[in-house]
Amino acid sequence: MARIKTPLATLLTDFGDRDGYVAAVKGVILSRRPECNIVDITHKIPPHDVVAASYVLAQAAPYFPPDTVHMVVVDPGVGTDRSILAARFSGQNFIFPDNGVISMVASRLNLEELAIVSNTRSLSGSVGRTFHGRDIFAPAAARILSGSTINSLGPKPGTYKLLDIAEPAAEGGVISGRIIYVDTFGNLVSNISEGTIRENIARVGETKVSCGDRDDIVTVATYGQGQADQPLALINSMGLLEVAVNQGRAADVLRAGVGDEMRVSMKEK
Amino acid sequence: MARIKTPLATLLTDFGDRDGYVAAVKGVILSRRPECNIVDITHKIPPHDVVAASYVLAQAAPYFPPDTVHMVVVDPGVGTDRSILAARFSGQNFIFPDNGVISMVASRLNLEELAIVSNTRSLSGSVGRTFHGRDIFAPAAARILSGSTINSLGPKPGTYKLLDIAEPAAEGGVISGRIIYVDTFGNLVSNISEGTIRENIARVGETKVSCGDRDDIVTVATYGQGQADQPLALINSMGLLEVAVNQGRAADVLRAGVGDEMRVSMKEK
Amino acid sequence: MARIKTPLATLLTDFGDRDGYVAAVKGVILSRRPECNIVDITHKIPPHDVVAASYVLAQAAPYFPPDTVHMVVVDPGVGTDRSILAARFSGQNFIFPDNGVISMVASRLNLEELAIVSNTRSLSGSVGRTFHGRDIFAPAAARILSGSTINSLGPKPGTYKLLDIAEPAAEGGVISGRIIYVDTFGNLVSNISEGTIRENIARVGETKVSCGDRDDIVTVATYGQGQADQPLALINSMGLLEVAVNQGRAADVLRAGVGDEMRVSMKEK
Repeated sequence: MARIKTPLATLLTDFGDRDGYVAAVKGVILSRRPECNIVDITHKIPPHDVVAASYVLAQAAPYFPPDTVHMVVVDPGVGTDRSILAARFSGQNFIFPDNGVISMVASRLNLEELAIVSNTRSLSGSVGRTFHGRDIFAPAAARILSGSTINSLGPKPGTYKLLDIAEPAAEGGVISGRIIYVDTFGNLVSNISEGTIRENIARVGETKVSCGDRDDIVTVATYGQGQADQPLALINSMGLLEVAVNQGRAADVLRAGVGDEMRVSMKEK
Repeated sequence: MARIKTPLATLLTDFGDRDGYVAAVKGVILSRRPECNIVDITHKIPPHDVVAASYVLAQAAPYFPPDTVHMVVVDPGVGTDRSILAARFSGQNFIFPDNGVISMVASRLNLEELAIVSNTRSLSGSVGRTFHGRDIFAPAAARILSGSTINSLGPKPGTYKLLDIAEPAAEGGVISGRIIYVDTFGNLVSNISEGTIRENIARVGETKVSCGDRDDIVTVATYGQGQADQPLALINSMGLLEVAVNQGRAADVLRAGVGDEMRVSMKEK
Repeated sequence: MARIKTPLATLLTDFGDRDGYVAAVKGVILSRRPECNIVDITHKIPPHDVVAASYVLAQAAPYFPPDTVHMVVVDPGVGTDRSILAARFSGQNFIFPDNGVISMVASRLNLEELAIVSNTRSLSGSVGRTFHGRDIFAPAAARILSGSTINSLGPKPGTYKLLDIAEPAAEGGVISGRIIYVDTFGNLVSNISEGTIRENIARVGETKVSCGDRDDIVTVATYGQGQADQPLALINSMGLLEVAVNQGRAADVLRAGVGDEMRVSMKEK
């Protein structure tokens, strides 16, 4: 791989936006590639919430150009012996802890290369005891941005961790999934895909949805279609079933949140 | 218009900063112009608050260089049939929903071109059902950044929406306006301009201001002039009358907020 | 100093992230150097908290490449007669109010140049009455990014303000310092450095720490070593003694905050 002409990187962390941590990571990258364009995906992942990080990464990463380097530093295991991995999926590069955070990218894009980030001492000079983002992730990203391949960063692992986000169960014309993410707008995102609905029941427009304390949520094509305060089910921009309230917060209206059940069945005629 | 050498874009939304939405919009732009410098104005506009978005846009946009593309995605009507417009004001480009959000820019800068963003299918390949920012605004921005004119994006509309932010009333030596914005520091911004005061009463230093539960607020030239906890009126960096409290929050001290009245009259001698 | 090829700037403010202030500052810089890469350190410094700003600046600035221009706009004295200074420390440039915010950088890096930013009218055309960040800091930064030296910005001051963050007291084998910062994760950062501990007591691993309502906090090498909810003391990535709770918030667990005491003594055998 040649040196990338217009280097692009993204950062996804649970560092928050009040401290100097994120900027220190960026400084390390910019010290090696000062022309790198670094995009914040978010730093507001709930602390150590690997499922939320996995979802948000998959929302954003596929829209970036080839050779972008995505750093994911949401890492309950920092300081322990979990590995830091580097991978190439569908032409894009990822550096992430081996804790399953890559799951939703792995299920949507194609794995092309995979390595354990090694030789960290040579990457950063001296490895800080408590700040892997700055001392391992950023130097590894800078190496990829300077033309190193994923495979050159270390040996290939035997396997890597994927999250146990159970496939929704489909039985007797009912699909039973659960809420995996609640976004800024209070929208409730499930693990039920449009494809799963179509294979097991019918077209989305012919179904109804149960969620929270409501069991007859109509399915629509866009947010604008419902009346104010009415819960609506729709396929979101990630291809997943989501319950929203037009100009309101579904999480509040339905009193539902991450982990709660969402079910789909045929609409009564 | 030639291809812009150093492309610059800004983003102003109510998407918040927790999800992957903003980064997906940036990824689409960077996929077409990877060297584009994209500045966040803010993503913390209160959901669907078109007046706040209009004010914050006018605070920031005039300071950017010519040919910058400003995307404004604060859009209560997403999914309905309101148009998405593109306009050029005083050498800068804007893409925005036709809901009045452009009002405060329109009253300060000069309209040069205006178009309805059309042919959205060709802009994005497939138009997502729920995410116009990523699927329409970003591809349109990328086209402008690559040298397309505003006029080439679609037909000119007959008219476009402006907000009904009533001009303050001036009668009998009293100007009566209202609070249109409360900033991070709790400062209360009115719709009363320095020019309106000068034309109808006197120089700002010779007036007093009523706001919230206070009716004798002195006017000063800078924040630093008052004692702690003292409310002060001054012309802010936007040229509008603002009430502040030195090292305090005027919104709390005066118990006032968006929509409340602010009045100006002659100071007693 | 020649014109910088890949100009880099950072911004550290207490402006928050809801208004157009930060973007206006960036617009002024980009109007003069559109290719400038501008990194946000944070805009969430508690209003007017000069100690917090000083700490966060020192967390991030040393990791940036030479010639970066760091703007620090945390300024309780705006509108009064405090000076705005420009300085070069260890090859990096800083623009900051003369209120002590530079202290933690000054104690870690080497001062090379220092000037009072003068001739502000020529820097910005017309100097706004209430927004020094946009009208003085940004034009001064743009001048440095275009090749001006620090010394060319104005005369050298006789002295400059440093914060009175008292050195921790060491007496009878006990070091008594205080908490100067609480980060996003609730970690409690003290003003006690690893060097101070080593000089006065012993290696960090042989000491115990008192903080909040606990007086027997063990010292460890990494966050991952403790049990859940157990407070741990460690040297953080800034070289300062910090108390953390593995996967918890030390500030809550210990009921401690900025200004509270932290003490170090020999561990009982």
